[in-house]
This record gives sequence, C-alpha cells and structure tokens, in this order.
Amino acid sequence: MAFHYEVRKEASDSRARLGVIHTTHGSIETPVFMPVGTQATVKTLTPVELETLDAQIILGNTYHLYLRPGSSLVAEAGGLHQFMNWKRPILTDSGGFQVFSLGDLRKISEDGVEFRSHLDGSKHFISPEISMKIQMELGADIAMVFDECAPYPADREYVSHSKDMTTRWAKRCLQRHSREDQALFGIVQGGMFHDLRRESAAELIDLDFPGYGIGGLSVGEPKPLMYEVLDELIPHMPRSKPRYLMGVGSPDALVEGVFRGIDMFDCVLPTRIARHGTVLTRTGKFAIRDLPYARDFSPIEEGCSCYTCRNHSRAYIRHLFKAKEMLGYRLTTIHNLHVLLQLMADMRRAIAEGSLAQFRKEFFQEYAG
Amino acid sequence: MAFHYEVRKEASDSRARLGVIHTTHGSIETPVFMPVGTQATVKTLTPVELETLDAQIILGNTYHLYLRPGSSLVAEAGGLHQFMNWKRPILTDSGGFQVFSLGDLRKISEDGVEFRSHLDGSKHFISPEISMKIQMELGADIAMVFDECAPYPADREYVSHSKDMTTRWAKRCLQRHSREDQALFGIVQGGMFHDLRRESAAELIDLDFPGYGIGGLSVGEPKPLMYEVLDELIPHMPRSKPRYLMGVGSPDALVEGVFRGIDMFDCVLPTRIARHGTVLTRTGKFAIRDLPYARDFSPIEEGCSCYTCRNHSRAYIRHLFKAKEMLGYRLTTIHNLHVLLQLMADMRRAIAEGSLAQFRKEFFQEYAG
Repeated sequence: MAFHYEVRKEASDSRARLGVIHTTHGSIETPVFMPVGTQATVKTLTPVELETLDAQIILGNTYHLYLRPGSSLVAEAGGLHQFMNWKRPILTDSGGFQVFSLGDLRKISEDGVEFRSHLDGSKHFISPEISMKIQMELGADIAMVFDECAPYPADREYVSHSKDMTTRWAKRCLQRHSREDQALFGIVQGGMFHDLRRESAAELIDLDFPGYGIGGLSVGEPKPLMYEVLDELIPHMPRSKPRYLMGVGSPDALVEGVFRGIDMFDCVLPTRIARHGTVLTRTGKFAIRDLPYARDFSPIEEGCSCYTCRNHSRAYIRHLFKAKEMLGYRLTTIHNLHVLLQLMADMRRAIAEGSLAQFRKEFFQEYAG
Repeated sequence: MAFHYEVRKEASDSRARLGVIHTTHGSIETPVFMPVGTQATVKTLTPVELETLDAQIILGNTYHLYLRPGSSLVAEAGGLHQFMNWKRPILTDSGGFQVFSLGDLRKISEDGVEFRSHLDGSKHFISPEISMKIQMELGADIAMVFDECAPYPADREYVSHSKDMTTRWAKRCLQRHSREDQALFGIVQGGMFHDLRRESAAELIDLDFPGYGIGGLSVGEPKPLMYEVLDELIPHMPRSKPRYLMGVGSPDALVEGVFRGIDMFDCVLPTRIARHGTVLTRTGKFAIRDLPYARDFSPIEEGCSCYTCRNHSRAYIRHLFKAKEMLGYRLTTIHNLHVLLQLMADMRRAIAEGSLAQFRKEFFQEYAG
C-alpha cells in the first residue's frame, strides 16, 4: 500500500513532530491544515488557486457528496480527484458527523443511522459498511471510519456506550474496506472523559489503523478542556501514526494542537467566516464590512503575501461586500486560507529549527483572538 | 491628448474596419467587445482573469458607482483603475440609461433627471454637468455624454424631442468636460427614424467628439430593424472616429455589427446568462443545469481553449450549479466571455485577411441562436 507516515523530527520543547504522509497523489508535510471542500469545491476557489495557496490536501464531505451529486456519479467521473480536477491528496470524512448535525429525524441503532436529507427530506440509511462503499467510490487518499460523535455536554453513560459502538463500527469498517490505494483512519472518541479516551485509543490501536482521528472535540466545550483532553490522550497514541484533530481550525487551536502533537487539522472556519466578511490576521480578526474600512486603501494585512493583499485594498473589498459581489467572497477566502496555511508552514519551520515553544510564546503575545 | 483612433484597414467586402484606439492605459484593437464591470468588478472575476481572457477594455457603470461606493471615494482611491486594480483601459457610461431603467420615480426636465436610488430610495439628481463631474472623478479612459435614450416603441414626436435634448445635453457635457486624459464620446440617438438618426449624427459631428456611441438600439426592437438602422446610419458617421454600439453583445449581433462598421460593443449578456447557467457556444447556447449533462464528462465546448474547458466537465459544472456553489458562476462566466472575446479576435483576423464576408457566411451556417 502506497500510504505511509514518516516522522522526520520530534521536538524536544513540546510534543510536536515534523512528518511526511505519503499517498498515491503525493506527499503531505505535517503538521498540516486541510481546507474543507464540502461539495467537491473549496467554496469560491479553483483547484489552481488552492495549489497557489499551497494547500497540500483538502477534505471532502461524504454526507454531502453522497446526497449530491451521488457517489456513483463521482465514481463514474473517475473519483473525486478527477471529478473536481484536484490532483493532490484528498481526505473524506465518514458522513457520521453531518448525519448527526444536518440530517433530520435521525434514528441511531447498532446497525447504523437512518435520517432524512437536509436537501429534500428524502429518507436514507448509512451504516459503517455503506460509508465504506461511498468513500471507496469517492476514492480519496484517506477515508475515515463511520463513528458516533457524542455531543457536549453528555453524561458518562452515553459517552461510554457511544465510544463502545464507535469501536464496534470501526471493526465493521475495517472488515468492509478493501481499497488498497486508500488509507482508512480510526477515530478516537470518549468525550471529555480521560479514561474513556484512553480505552478508545487502546481499542483502535489494537485494530492497527494507519492513522487516527480524534473526534468529539471542538463540539462546544471550552478550549482549555479540549487542550486538557489532548494532554492526557496524546501520550497513549502511537508515535508512528498521524494524529488528526477533526474540525479544529482557529489559529490559537492550531498552535495549541501542534504543540500537543497533532499532525492534521481541518475546519470550515477560515472559509465560512470569509464569506461573512471576517478576515483573519496574525493577531486576530476583523469585519471588513465595518465603516472604518470604507476609505482604508491599505491591504487586509500589511506585509501579507497572498493574492488579495498584493492586489486589493480593504476599501475595495468592503465595497464588494456591501455590493454583494462574489469577488469579495473569493478575496477574503484566499486571504483567510493563506493565513492558516502560512501559520502551519511557520510552525513546521519552527519545529525544524527546534523553536516551537518560543514560536508559541510569541504567537500568544500578539494574538488577541 | 493621449486618446486617438487609427484605422488600420477598411474591408472591401463589408463596412468593417480594423483599427486601434490609443489611450493612456494602453491600446485597444478594434472591433472590440467590452465586458461589463458594473460595480467596479466584472462579476465573479479578478482583473488577472480578465487579462488572461484578453479583455482589452472593460466598462464601468456610472449610475451604480455614483450610488455605491460613490465617485468621491473612487477618486480618493486614485480613480477606478486603482480602486479595482485594473491596469488596462476603462469606459464609463453616462448613467443616463440606468437612471431611466433602474431609478424610481424619475422626473426628466431640460435641466437633468431627478430619480430615487434603486438601493435605498434616496433622492438624487443627475444633469449633464453632474454626469461629467462623476465620470471625471471615476477617471475612465473614455467617458460618455449624458443622453436620453428613447424607449421602443416611441412615436416620432417623442423621439425627435429626445434627440434634440440629447444634442443640447451633449453640448453642455462638452462644455463641462475638462479631463485631458479622458476622451468624451457623443451618443447618436433618433430611435428607429432614419432621418432623426442622420440629424443626430450631423449635430454631434459638428461638435467634433473623438468617438461616437450609437444609443437607443437593442432596447426591445426586432434585430432586423436594428441592422436596418445601422445600414442607414453608418455611412453618415465619420470614418476617422470609433463607433460604439451600446448594449449589444449577442454573438449574431456582434457579427452583424462588425460587418456594418461597428468598432466597439458592450453587453451584460455573456456574464448575466453565465450566472443563470446558460453557456455560449459557437453554434448557440445551452443550459448547463439540464439533466442530460449530469453524467457528461466532456467540456462545455470541445476544442475550446478557455480555463473552464481545459479543466472542468459539464457534469462538474452542473453539480456546482445544482449545489449553488460560486465556482460554478465563475467557470461559466470565464467560458462565455472567452467565446465572445475569441469571436472578436477571429473577426479581426478575418478583416485583416479580407475574408469577413466569408467568415460571416460560415458563422451563420452554424449558428442556431
């Protein structure tokens, strides 16, 4: 199998590590942030623009692609890479998270989840086996097991039962998954309970997945609690496998995650807030629609090397947003993704230079959130 | 003054001519089609993409830019070129057409037009002098006189009065206009009445504008009637000045216009229909949302060299439209503009080779509209 993960360097000032994930569609330097391309497109951008931004891998959402255009159509196109003309690696989630958060009237049983489409109310059923079938049709480089993501807050009994089912589902996924050019990652659950997290990790490690997602975080809990879970969990995860913190992508959480030994992240945050006119900077964020920017002819961020900042002013972008012009959404999306991808590149450099702890200290001296 | 027009070749098989318009922002090979950038953006595209499409000049709408972001703000940015970061030539219309078609409760007098904004209902007044002030603030390479565009159908008395007022307004514009790096074009009116058109042309030629728009066509009249007006009018227009057929841009009308001696065109058609999912081809057009394209993995048009056709399939673009993804609007906009700009380039080549009549014949053998 083409997929493998290679640790290049382990930091001595933190749990961070520098690595490379090899896939049939090329290599990924970790730690890495994956832009989200929910419906076979990272909203507003072309694949060429994503390459220019140096996105190394993007994420596709199984739930959305299953409903529209349908995974059999994508398979007929030659898979998701071909369908959307993205030549670099792709990861698909399992559909589980969206079934729970977007599907209506869902009924969860040991067998799987019955739900109604958020698009047209039609009835569907996804099981671990069906998720594998869909993800194999989509043909991403990395697929995820179908899991149940417990909400926050949730009591111990619920989380424990959910974690156990996730392990049983992981076994069924593994049994059904057969695509040699696609790696299947397990997902550690267990909510905010350290012992359940450790159990989940141990059970999945027994199944020997080539990589592990950490699910059920960034679901509404305070950030310090998430960091505490990572502090407790990471030492129980294998050094030789990539660790993917699912759904996390605010700049501060990226820094804290990398510091704690996370290798992969994904989040809709940079692209979603971009479309609402909120732009990220290294010190925080601001709303470009605000009046003070009406006659501000400077770029979003002085010194930023993204296309947007090299070519357009705050005043122009604000005008585009006020006039509801699509170019506005493009320009803020490019900038926000650049900020996060640049932050990841900076952290990789800091790990290589042995200065991540220093980097983190300086980052939080400036960062106002 | 930097602006001048140079006839390079006059066709012997038609009234077509090949020319070059020189402006302070570069030269424009004519006949030319100008994409419309209503609100300081050709919808969905960056300036870089427009350059890649080989757009030589774009149009900005004075009415829209006056209301939002305001011409004084644009002037503060250094003019429209700087504001939107477009380095090639720009033409602004006078605002007249939009005041009549978009403004509410308009009151026309000899002095000018009072109207309410379509955005917020606020009251405004534009006169020939105010239109000049706004257009000088926007700083396009070519400005247009403030005219009254008679509707279709309209009786002779109305059109005659309107044409006379347009001439008086043209004089007032000329008197007020003072920007040396900006050419001011007159606009020939006179509806469908050949003698009024001739009178209008003669009156404006007396004022010696550096170029002439032909207004009041493509306002609902049958196309053959528009062609008849051009056939009658063009011989009465100066050979040494560019002729701009305003608001025309369907492929068939571009071919018929060039054949009759038109040098410049603009139209929202290619970009507007693109956003509704209608794509142009050399033989006509089709709706990409239609079911037959769901599993059609060929490009919009086989052999087309645009970014969209080189990179994406009908099936993918249809999916983007069904999913309301912005990338879909971008891809069809790029393709449609490419088709029209390529058609113009092909006609320039045909004129150079002395084969425009043959080109037109072959075009209409294929074209189904």
